[in-house]
Amino acid sequence: MKRQELRIGVIGLGRAGSGMLTALAQHPNVQVTAAADLYPQHLEKFKSEFGGEAYKNAADLCSSNSVDAVYIATPHALHVEHFLMAAEAGKHAIVEKPMALSMDDCDAMIAASERLGVHLIVGHTASFNPVVQKMRKLVVEKEFGELAFMSATAYTDFLYRPRRPEELVSKLGGGIMYNQIPHQVDAIRFIAGGLARSVKASMYDLDPLRHTEGSCNAFLEFHNGVSATLTYSGYDHFESSELSNNQGPKKSTQYGSTKRILSSAVDAEDEVAMRVDTGFGGINSVFSSAKPQTSGSLLQGELGSFIVTCNNGDLRMLPDGVGVYSDDGFQLVSPEPWVGLQGRGAVIEELYHAIFSKKKVIHDGRWAKATMEVCLAMIESAGSRKEVMLNHQVPTLDFDS
Amino acid sequence: MKRQELRIGVIGLGRAGSGMLTALAQHPNVQVTAAADLYPQHLEKFKSEFGGEAYKNAADLCSSNSVDAVYIATPHALHVEHFLMAAEAGKHAIVEKPMALSMDDCDAMIAASERLGVHLIVGHTASFNPVVQKMRKLVVEKEFGELAFMSATAYTDFLYRPRRPEELVSKLGGGIMYNQIPHQVDAIRFIAGGLARSVKASMYDLDPLRHTEGSCNAFLEFHNGVSATLTYSGYDHFESSELSNNQGPKKSTQYGSTKRILSSAVDAEDEVAMRVDTGFGGINSVFSSAKPQTSGSLLQGELGSFIVTCNNGDLRMLPDGVGVYSDDGFQLVSPEPWVGLQGRGAVIEELYHAIFSKKKVIHDGRWAKATMEVCLAMIESAGSRKEVMLNHQVPTLDFDS
Repeated sequence: MKRQELRIGVIGLGRAGSGMLTALAQHPNVQVTAAADLYPQHLEKFKSEFGGEAYKNAADLCSSNSVDAVYIATPHALHVEHFLMAAEAGKHAIVEKPMALSMDDCDAMIAASERLGVHLIVGHTASFNPVVQKMRKLVVEKEFGELAFMSATAYTDFLYRPRRPEELVSKLGGGIMYNQIPHQVDAIRFIAGGLARSVKASMYDLDPLRHTEGSCNAFLEFHNGVSATLTYSGYDHFESSELSNNQGPKKSTQYGSTKRILSSAVDAEDEVAMRVDTGFGGINSVFSSAKPQTSGSLLQGELGSFIVTCNNGDLRMLPDGVGVYSDDGFQLVSPEPWVGLQGRGAVIEELYHAIFSKKKVIHDGRWAKATMEVCLAMIESAGSRKEVMLNHQVPTLDFDS
Repeated sequence: MKRQELRIGVIGLGRAGSGMLTALAQHPNVQVTAAADLYPQHLEKFKSEFGGEAYKNAADLCSSNSVDAVYIATPHALHVEHFLMAAEAGKHAIVEKPMALSMDDCDAMIAASERLGVHLIVGHTASFNPVVQKMRKLVVEKEFGELAFMSATAYTDFLYRPRRPEELVSKLGGGIMYNQIPHQVDAIRFIAGGLARSVKASMYDLDPLRHTEGSCNAFLEFHNGVSATLTYSGYDHFESSELSNNQGPKKSTQYGSTKRILSSAVDAEDEVAMRVDTGFGGINSVFSSAKPQTSGSLLQGELGSFIVTCNNGDLRMLPDGVGVYSDDGFQLVSPEPWVGLQGRGAVIEELYHAIFSKKKVIHDGRWAKATMEVCLAMIESAGSRKEVMLNHQVPTLDFDS
């Protein structure tokens, strides 16, 4: 049977939107029928590339009859407003992480989703990664015994990617606690079964010129006894991808290059221009209309060196799949096949099957709210210097087990 | 001025004793004048190699007039008894870690050391490693700004090294909490300044055939705001040395080899024989009378992937020194020169200069007791599932700053 077509409108053609446009363009049963953005150059590029409707505001897009569902990639603080707008118009939605900036906003979105009967999926996050999904499958099937604990250790250049000013304001969703830590928490919750019990964390704001949280150390414990250590640092010094990519270190002078490139921006306006250029049609756009790569790395940079320990083996994220270290030595376990672009393709698939196959949504509002609870509890713990208990956790929903 | 000679008696010629004998033999101003052990074959080998006095019990060695100081490498539970014996005889002492198995025993040793005017040094531990010491120096001198946080992520074969039965009984000092975690805690306390505030931890006992703690995940916070995540797993699955040794992965079949070798032991007695063979003169002895190597790896396996983050750079333990990743790219910073065998040579130096130069001891009883407090608090935290506050911490004593 031929699969039905899903018509999607994209709200926000910035960096996240451009990344998802790549995935949407590569999905076999999706048509991108509309886009909304504040920047005319993004809309022009969209019209020439996709030929769809182009809107200057989200409300008009939500009223379009050519749109079944929207993908919301606007600034974080606007997610709640734009989702409620879409839901009122009867549109299903994929919302970029973070879902929202407060538990109250998450609740409002969940309530609207349920009241109005529209699906709400939050993503892309790391648990859509085929390697993370395979790790969960190996854990559920007890392929290497019971899950015990995890470690995630990431060092990236996050702080020095070009930003709009509000992206460096923590209360508006800036910094790693709303942008990068959710990936680690999401993957760890997904594999551990979801029900986190408590968190203890410290955060660090190390560069006065980029005044927001750039590093975090945390300990996450689950009701089932599983624990995880999380380390994330985004200051473009050490780079953890070299721990996992089997390619060894970069050249000495390549470290810190993101920060040095950024330093060519003479002022905040200049940096915003660089930021806008990462959007759709910009010279640094992440959009690619190329066919899905089958040989690309499956590493998830935000997870860093990511190792899951079970009774009878360690499962390690590697570029080609799950590296399994057991009593029998090493073996590489390939992930399950995926549809479209790896990772983001799975986000679209989840929405697609929720609509057309009535499958339950895994990454729904309650799942994303529980991840947000952990991140907000980390912020609280870093401030109070106390362990913080968690009260809004939900279990991982496994499709096939 | 010619340095004076220090005459040392070794109590316990097992694996730890053999390791320290290598260091003692290579130290320019030390003479090993006596040894005590239960196994005649160890004593025979000692007499032929060092020509010193050989005793069947520790008390007789402590009475010898040929001994200025003792090195105590007996089973953990006997450290307190043997140190008190040595102190009563007026001998200074180096005690292997763990210092003792309880805070009360630590207190008794500290009291005896102070009352009887003998030096007590606990080691070897990871903070004697030249790379760790260089990291501390860079931190104190704020070479790359203020210290922020650390991560230590270790995966080793610890559980499957040959053991005597009591080495697998946690209450008798078996398992990683008394043997491996002290290395991570010691190095982290040393670099952070010593004054830990609280700990939150989980422990795992994953192999019913090796029934003791084999893995631990922990979060350590310091009064000065520094935090550290610690992960240790000793089940011979993944091996973290490959994250730091610049040599890449082993052959697939080499993983798990320690466990497979151990499985050739048919019973506990057989395993004890393998264990004894790691002692002095045994076929698997770690003793080497060769001259100090200057090209060996400086990695400390117990620390695993070990990264120290400061405001302006990440400091990483590498085989040749401190890898510094800063705004200027990568540079390798060599450690300070050391005397004798790297690491263990520094333990001897610390005792030597305490005796002959009246230098203050860094790794004294109070320092080791504070490290033990953290390890015991981790055990408590894993049981209670609560953060545990620390009350017996002492600061790092820096010689030259």
